[in-house]
Amino acid sequence: MKIVKTVAEMQKESAALRTGGATIGVVPTMGALHSGHASLITASALRHPATIVTVFVNPTQFGPADDFARYPRTPDEDAALAEQYGATHLFIPDTSAMYPQGYSTMITVGSLSTVLEGAVRPGHFDGVATVVCKLFAATHPHEAYFGQKDYQQTLIIKRMTRDLNLGVGITVCPTIREADGLALSSRNRYLTSADRVTALALYRALRAGRSAAHTAGATGKTIEDEMLQELSGLQVDYVAAVHPDTLEPLETVITGDTIVLLVAARLGSTRLIDNVIVTVGSDAY
Amino acid sequence: MKIVKTVAEMQKESAALRTGGATIGVVPTMGALHSGHASLITASALRHPATIVTVFVNPTQFGPADDFARYPRTPDEDAALAEQYGATHLFIPDTSAMYPQGYSTMITVGSLSTVLEGAVRPGHFDGVATVVCKLFAATHPHEAYFGQKDYQQTLIIKRMTRDLNLGVGITVCPTIREADGLALSSRNRYLTSADRVTALALYRALRAGRSAAHTAGATGKTIEDEMLQELSGLQVDYVAAVHPDTLEPLETVITGDTIVLLVAARLGSTRLIDNVIVTVGSDAY
Repeated sequence: MKIVKTVAEMQKESAALRTGGATIGVVPTMGALHSGHASLITASALRHPATIVTVFVNPTQFGPADDFARYPRTPDEDAALAEQYGATHLFIPDTSAMYPQGYSTMITVGSLSTVLEGAVRPGHFDGVATVVCKLFAATHPHEAYFGQKDYQQTLIIKRMTRDLNLGVGITVCPTIREADGLALSSRNRYLTSADRVTALALYRALRAGRSAAHTAGATGKTIEDEMLQELSGLQVDYVAAVHPDTLEPLETVITGDTIVLLVAARLGSTRLIDNVIVTVGSDAY
Repeated sequence: MKIVKTVAEMQKESAALRTGGATIGVVPTMGALHSGHASLITASALRHPATIVTVFVNPTQFGPADDFARYPRTPDEDAALAEQYGATHLFIPDTSAMYPQGYSTMITVGSLSTVLEGAVRPGHFDGVATVVCKLFAATHPHEAYFGQKDYQQTLIIKRMTRDLNLGVGITVCPTIREADGLALSSRNRYLTSADRVTALALYRALRAGRSAAHTAGATGKTIEDEMLQELSGLQVDYVAAVHPDTLEPLETVITGDTIVLLVAARLGSTRLIDNVIVTVGSDAY
């Protein structure tokens, strides 16, 4: 596995790969890699001769009250995991390479960016869209892999990629969970053992919402109320049962509708998110 | 010369050119091509086996009070001129190809975008940055050519290209002028014969500013005052003697400083802009 630290070197490497006829998959990450990231690397490595894992803790997607400073950084473990799962390249630029002095360009993706996560974390998705565009420009991939756990992020990246004609396929892979249902997250390592137990309420809320969605006469509101019940005692940022493309609220849901349930809550100073996609009335559950 | 109308086709064509070893120059235009554009096409054709001229009247860079509807559209003449000067490809997408339903991504380039032209035309440079990024993604060029006449635009495109790691070289070519000094512009065709005479005041203002800059003790203010004197009777949007990179106001200018003088004024319903770069105390003038 080749380790690349500058944008110019990465672009040169990518151009050489393309000239050689290789297709390129990229897995953009903020490091602190876990099995969720591993599943993305595996998916890319199965399909593309070249898989680039990017590791960059992007300051522009953290707000002043967010956990940028304490976000876990584990570069040696990240490199070992990426190589183990089949990455051919690790792109690990430093902040000054990505945001040199005088940097002033930001990308904004309309109304999808200002609801749910975007309402709680103003500017977050501008930072995400901007860094992903830059990472695509640095790696020039054919396909990029993201986890469903950051559902709203995947919508915004798809929209930006299409709107700007970036010519990158966006593939969203299923959320990877612990045996008890907790979605894997780099932030799980912040949790105390007591919080680790409490955190399961998010998954219970999603399952309760899913059941409610399958109930005759369900509406966005009745689903959200069921979800909230499972979250008593947590500091809930939002629960939402919304349209899977627009994230707009739902009135009555009927058999055959596909909806997405999302939840965000805080446990002490740790903030967790999770979601499930539900096809109403399906037998899958 | 090949005519290309869709983004997907353009991307395929560009990839094939690159695979074949050709470098690609692009000349982004809004059509109504004149000798200024011809000089850009020539510069690209001298250097690159492939030169793509893009013609797209970009709605997102026009404000509600701007001249989008009446902006001149001369597609047949544009194609003839592009081919004559050595373009190998003409990319002429329609608006729905560039901004399909649901389009919602915009690019903003910080403080450079909000002064001078940006103050008079709010949002203009967001539209410019966005469409240029999209045109780069569609054509994937090695180098792009712009005219100095749109000086502030060239700064913003350079900044965006660097900030987003787009990997495109930005080359700025000198403003082409009529024999009497009027800068070529697609909008000159709006001018009545009386306005055509009046329009020379812009060039006179730039020459007066240049002389003032060479005077001992000159400041941004003394230079701008001299420029304004030449523009009496016109509706002046701004005159500016500013730093060539930051567009920030100048105090005293001294020998060896490089500064830029810019002017924007209206003649009836037609708005004209012009600029010159001055190296203070040089013998060039």
